[in-house]
Amino acid sequence: MTDTLWPDPLSFEQALSEAASLTDSLLDRLLVAPRDLEARVYEAMRYAALSPGKRLRPFLVLAGARLFAVDRRCALQVAAAIEMVHAYSLVHDDLPAMDDSDLRRGRPTCHKEFDEATAILAGDGLLTRAFEVLAHPDTHADPAVRCELVAALAAAAGAAGMVGGQMIDLIAEHRQLDIGAITRLQRMKTGALIAFACEAGAVLAKAPLEARTALRGYAHDLGLAFQIADDLLDVEGSAAETGKPVGADAAAGKATFVSILGVDQARRQAERLIGQAVTHLDLFGARAELLGEAARFVISRRT
Amino acid sequence: MTDTLWPDPLSFEQALSEAASLTDSLLDRLLVAPRDLEARVYEAMRYAALSPGKRLRPFLVLAGARLFAVDRRCALQVAAAIEMVHAYSLVHDDLPAMDDSDLRRGRPTCHKEFDEATAILAGDGLLTRAFEVLAHPDTHADPAVRCELVAALAAAAGAAGMVGGQMIDLIAEHRQLDIGAITRLQRMKTGALIAFACEAGAVLAKAPLEARTALRGYAHDLGLAFQIADDLLDVEGSAAETGKPVGADAAAGKATFVSILGVDQARRQAERLIGQAVTHLDLFGARAELLGEAARFVISRRT
Repeated sequence: MTDTLWPDPLSFEQALSEAASLTDSLLDRLLVAPRDLEARVYEAMRYAALSPGKRLRPFLVLAGARLFAVDRRCALQVAAAIEMVHAYSLVHDDLPAMDDSDLRRGRPTCHKEFDEATAILAGDGLLTRAFEVLAHPDTHADPAVRCELVAALAAAAGAAGMVGGQMIDLIAEHRQLDIGAITRLQRMKTGALIAFACEAGAVLAKAPLEARTALRGYAHDLGLAFQIADDLLDVEGSAAETGKPVGADAAAGKATFVSILGVDQARRQAERLIGQAVTHLDLFGARAELLGEAARFVISRRT
Repeated sequence: MTDTLWPDPLSFEQALSEAASLTDSLLDRLLVAPRDLEARVYEAMRYAALSPGKRLRPFLVLAGARLFAVDRRCALQVAAAIEMVHAYSLVHDDLPAMDDSDLRRGRPTCHKEFDEATAILAGDGLLTRAFEVLAHPDTHADPAVRCELVAALAAAAGAAGMVGGQMIDLIAEHRQLDIGAITRLQRMKTGALIAFACEAGAVLAKAPLEARTALRGYAHDLGLAFQIADDLLDVEGSAAETGKPVGADAAAGKATFVSILGVDQARRQAERLIGQAVTHLDLFGARAELLGEAARFVISRRT
C-alpha cells in the first residue's frame, strides 16, 4: 500500500468534486460501448451511471481509503463498482412496475430516455459489471481481499440488503409501517450500500476490526440521517432543486420518518444522528476530518 | 481436491436426475426466506430457482468437475450459482416489457404468480446471490479460484454475454438478422453461460489451458446445437411438452436458425455441431462419456 497517490488534504467541497470527476472518468473507461448491436444497452448503462450526481458513495470510499493510505487506484475501482450498483438500483426502482418515476437527477429516467426493456437490461448489466470490476486484479493484488469485497457488496445489494429493502418499501404502499420497521427498511435499502462504501477502505487496507467497527457505526448513523434528510427534501424541497418529483411519498400514502415524527422532530433526530456519527470517528483523529464534514453535509444539502 | 465424494459412474439419465436433486437441495439451503416483510422476494426467488426443470447447466458443471475429480461440494456451489443466474435471466426475459410470457416450465411465470415489481426484484436478488455464493469459501479454499469464477460468471452474464444477447434479441424484433448475427446473439444469450458451466470444473481444478480450451470448444458447439434444438421445438413441439407457448418466435417475426435454414437443414446442422462437440472430448477419453451423452441428449430432447 502506498499513499503517494494521495494529494494534500483538500477542502470537503474539493474532495467531493474530485471524487466525482475521478469516479466518472473511471466509469467512462469501464463502460465502453462496442460497435455492435448490443451497444444500445451500454449506452443505457452509461446514461444511468454517468448521469449528474453528487457521487456521495464514491466520496465515502475515497475518504475511508485515505484514512489507511490505501492505493487510490484500488479505492477508485471500488468507488466505481458501488456507483454502478447505486445507478442500477435507481434504474430498476424508477421502472413503471416499481416507483414509476419519469424524472431523476433532472433528466428523464432511463426507461423514459430508452425504453423499459432496455432499462431492465441496463440495470442487470450494471449490477453484473460491478462484481466483475471488484473481482479484477486492478482492485487489489490479494484475491482474498477481492473476494471479501464481492461478498460484502453482494450482501449489501441482495435480498438481505437493497433488494429486500425495496421489497419492503413496495409493501409499505399497502401497509402502514411503524418507526422500527421504517428504520429497518432504510438500513436495508440505502444504509447497507453506504455502510459498504464507508468500510471498503478498511477492507482494502486489511485494517483491524476496531477500525471497521468504528466505520460501520459511523455509516449506520450517517445512512439514517441521510434518509431522514431525503424525506425532509421530499416535503420541503422543490423539483428544481432536487431534480426529481417532490411530494411523492406523501402522494403514495407512504409512512416516512417525517410523516411519523413530524418535520421538526425529524430534523432534530437527523442532527442527533450526525453528532453520534462523528463520535465514531474519534479513533482516527484529525485524519477523519473529511468524513466528519461529509456527515454535516448530508443533512444540510438541498439536493 | 478429493474424488471420494464421486460415486461410481452413473448412466446419463441417473446423472442428470442426480445433478437436479443435489442442486435443488443446495438451492433450497441457499435461499432461506427470513420471517420478515421481505420474505416475499425470497419466495419469488425460490419459485423461480426451484421451478421444475432439467438442470442441464448444473449437470454440465458436475460432469465437467468429475473429469478432474474436483470436490463435489465445490462443484455444487458453482452449479447452484449458475442455476440462479439462469433462473434470473428467465424471470427478467419473461417480463411484459421483454418477451411478455405467461407460461414457463408449465407454470405461471414469476410476474404472473407474484407481480411485476416482485419479479424484477427476485431476478436482481438471484443474480446478486449467485456472486455471493461464488465468493464464499465453501466454493473453493483458494480465493484466487473464487475470484476467477466471479469474473467468468460476470463476463458470461453481463452486457458482453447474456444481457447483450437479450438486447440484440429485442432489437431483432424490428430488424432482420442474418445467420452470422443470430449465431453471435445466441453465443451471447445462451452460449456464454453454458460455456461457463462446462469450464467451471476445470477452473476449480486449476486444470491446464489445454483442458479448458477443449471444454470451451465442446461448450461452444453444444450451446449452438442446444439453441437450434430450441428453435426446432418452438416450431415442432407442443405447449404440453415444452411447458411454454410454442410458435412464439414466428409470431414475433423473429429470424431463427430454423426460419433461415429450414427445418431439415437446421436439424442436420445441429447434428453436425454435436458430432463436432464430441470430438473436443477426445482429450479426456472414456472419462468424458457423460458429457458426450449430454451432447446427444441436447438435440434429442422433446422439452
